[in-house]
Amino acid sequence: MVEHRLRRLAERQRAAGIDCVALMPGPNMQYMGGLTLFMSERPIVAFFFLDRRPALLVPALERGRAEAMAGPGVDLYSYTDEEGAAVGFARVGEALRLAGQRIAVEYLHMRVLELRALEAVAPGAQFVALEQALPGLRIIKDQDEVGSMRKAIAITEDALGALLSRPLAGLSEREIAGRLAQEFMAAGAQRVGFIIVVAGPNGADPHAGPSDRPVQAGDLITIDCGVTHDGYPSDITRTFAVGETSPQLKRIYDVVRRANEAGTLVTRPGIEAQEVDRAARRVIADAGYGKYFFHRTGHGLGLEGHEPPYMVEGNTERLEPGMVFTVEPGVYIPGVGGARVEDNLVVTQNGFECLTRFPRELMVIS
Amino acid sequence: MVEHRLRRLAERQRAAGIDCVALMPGPNMQYMGGLTLFMSERPIVAFFFLDRRPALLVPALERGRAEAMAGPGVDLYSYTDEEGAAVGFARVGEALRLAGQRIAVEYLHMRVLELRALEAVAPGAQFVALEQALPGLRIIKDQDEVGSMRKAIAITEDALGALLSRPLAGLSEREIAGRLAQEFMAAGAQRVGFIIVVAGPNGADPHAGPSDRPVQAGDLITIDCGVTHDGYPSDITRTFAVGETSPQLKRIYDVVRRANEAGTLVTRPGIEAQEVDRAARRVIADAGYGKYFFHRTGHGLGLEGHEPPYMVEGNTERLEPGMVFTVEPGVYIPGVGGARVEDNLVVTQNGFECLTRFPRELMVIS
Repeated sequence: MVEHRLRRLAERQRAAGIDCVALMPGPNMQYMGGLTLFMSERPIVAFFFLDRRPALLVPALERGRAEAMAGPGVDLYSYTDEEGAAVGFARVGEALRLAGQRIAVEYLHMRVLELRALEAVAPGAQFVALEQALPGLRIIKDQDEVGSMRKAIAITEDALGALLSRPLAGLSEREIAGRLAQEFMAAGAQRVGFIIVVAGPNGADPHAGPSDRPVQAGDLITIDCGVTHDGYPSDITRTFAVGETSPQLKRIYDVVRRANEAGTLVTRPGIEAQEVDRAARRVIADAGYGKYFFHRTGHGLGLEGHEPPYMVEGNTERLEPGMVFTVEPGVYIPGVGGARVEDNLVVTQNGFECLTRFPRELMVIS
Repeated sequence: MVEHRLRRLAERQRAAGIDCVALMPGPNMQYMGGLTLFMSERPIVAFFFLDRRPALLVPALERGRAEAMAGPGVDLYSYTDEEGAAVGFARVGEALRLAGQRIAVEYLHMRVLELRALEAVAPGAQFVALEQALPGLRIIKDQDEVGSMRKAIAITEDALGALLSRPLAGLSEREIAGRLAQEFMAAGAQRVGFIIVVAGPNGADPHAGPSDRPVQAGDLITIDCGVTHDGYPSDITRTFAVGETSPQLKRIYDVVRRANEAGTLVTRPGIEAQEVDRAARRVIADAGYGKYFFHRTGHGLGLEGHEPPYMVEGNTERLEPGMVFTVEPGVYIPGVGGARVEDNLVVTQNGFECLTRFPRELMVIS
């Protein structure tokens, strides 16, 4: 269990009048309890209270691993395959006196399976949406979290640098993706992360899979990639020029780079998230490419990879120190190509720190 | 929509007295509708009826993509971000007359979010667990599904072969994993799949992450890997000897290979799934290594990667033609090493076909 996070949860729980928070395996359970358990057909639920120790319900075959991860401050309950989960829920319902409680559950993660099992053992309980009762539980990142992202970013930037140390022209997007996968592992990745490689006309589709088209002189090549380190992601995009590119592609790149810079430089505590989007989008619109930038400017980065805050028109959420998000404007012109430049920022007391350091000038590679 | 699967669903729905089947994005929705949509904070639900066309509720921003995937036989309903999902559910609830219906929902996939939204627009409806009302919806694979797995297996075996064409001794497990990732892409993978590489003493942990320990003469090296092709997986394990290995390790390998063979050869329609486990386990137990084989012998393979039928003691489910599963016994001796040999089988009218063809004799590599 992560004590300072539990304390903050209890404060917010008290203020919101929540007796019990029930968490599923996933980002919130990992955040509160350091528990990297997985959802399966055998239910697992963690319970957090105001007046008693946290409790964890697990299948018997996960009990040893769960106990080791949870540490001594947690009460464990389990059920065997022969007993079935209902027996485990009954134990928990009685021991934790769930009847009549006001229980916050994750509407976006808890399944009908667990809800029905809880309803059965907690008569009179009221189930409310955690996302509404206690919003933004993980939105402010602490130093441990930012540290994990720094490590993920370092691995990613090392791998990108190694990839560029050899010529790429003539290789297919698929072959380049394979090389980058290898470089990720060589750079110390815990596992291969995500890799998008698009070049030439394919660059006009921001999320295309890698094709077998060989990369050639005159292409812009866009690489969007990242790894996860201790559960925390990096998410970096750079666009490179292969040999001499057309004036139109150079202009597109320059506009995107300036849009990225504008979205970055506007970042500081107190502004609304949509202002990051507006700052980046304005540069692209002013250059006449507005209709070719058809996605939001960025998303929060954390245990979920894509999470709040979203840098999108309409999001009036105000930035606070410790929020981490991407700034990733792009321009995509069908039949011609595209460019995107993506950085990862953390909001600081006075402004921002850009966690990604890979050069943003248009690099010409061979 | 996949017509022959819809027809079969309707037959079973009628027999079980289910008015409506509500599916979430994921394996069942992909199976019935060819819809590769993803779960997000914006709910998506597909509805299947006995007396009307299928319907699909999607957020407005997914409408175009969903329409293209679903084809003309499906009624689409959508909601904008401004309206919110509740408005979309209200439209669906009224148009589809969900009130009072008997609705099967996926207890293992539907979230509290969608259940509550459906409850709100379907007064008097009864929600039952799809997994119990209509079990085994995807357990018999058709030719398209087996074809996708054949392709995934071909890519995996090509990549494994390419990996072994160069010496591995002296490389770390991590470096070997990186090379294999590259070979996967070179072999035509849509994306890098999963890769487990363990050697020497690390081989005693069947699911360890790759370490930086260099592989050396005398090691057994176990590689468990696979890719996904059009949503369908391969899942293959082979164990190799690096140079000359000890008599103990050779014996372990031989026992595991014979256990794999025993589990494979017993396969035919009509036997219980647990008999595959027993056949493999008996070989290992008879050799005196019973306590070092501590996982089930296999699992079904399909859109979920791990799915029924499970080859495990206690599973009396009878095998039928078209079921696809793994046979993957292993022996893991702490401090010494381990071995596992895993194949993918499809049950045929008279017995089985082994889809994986990579050699099973102990290959000595350098």
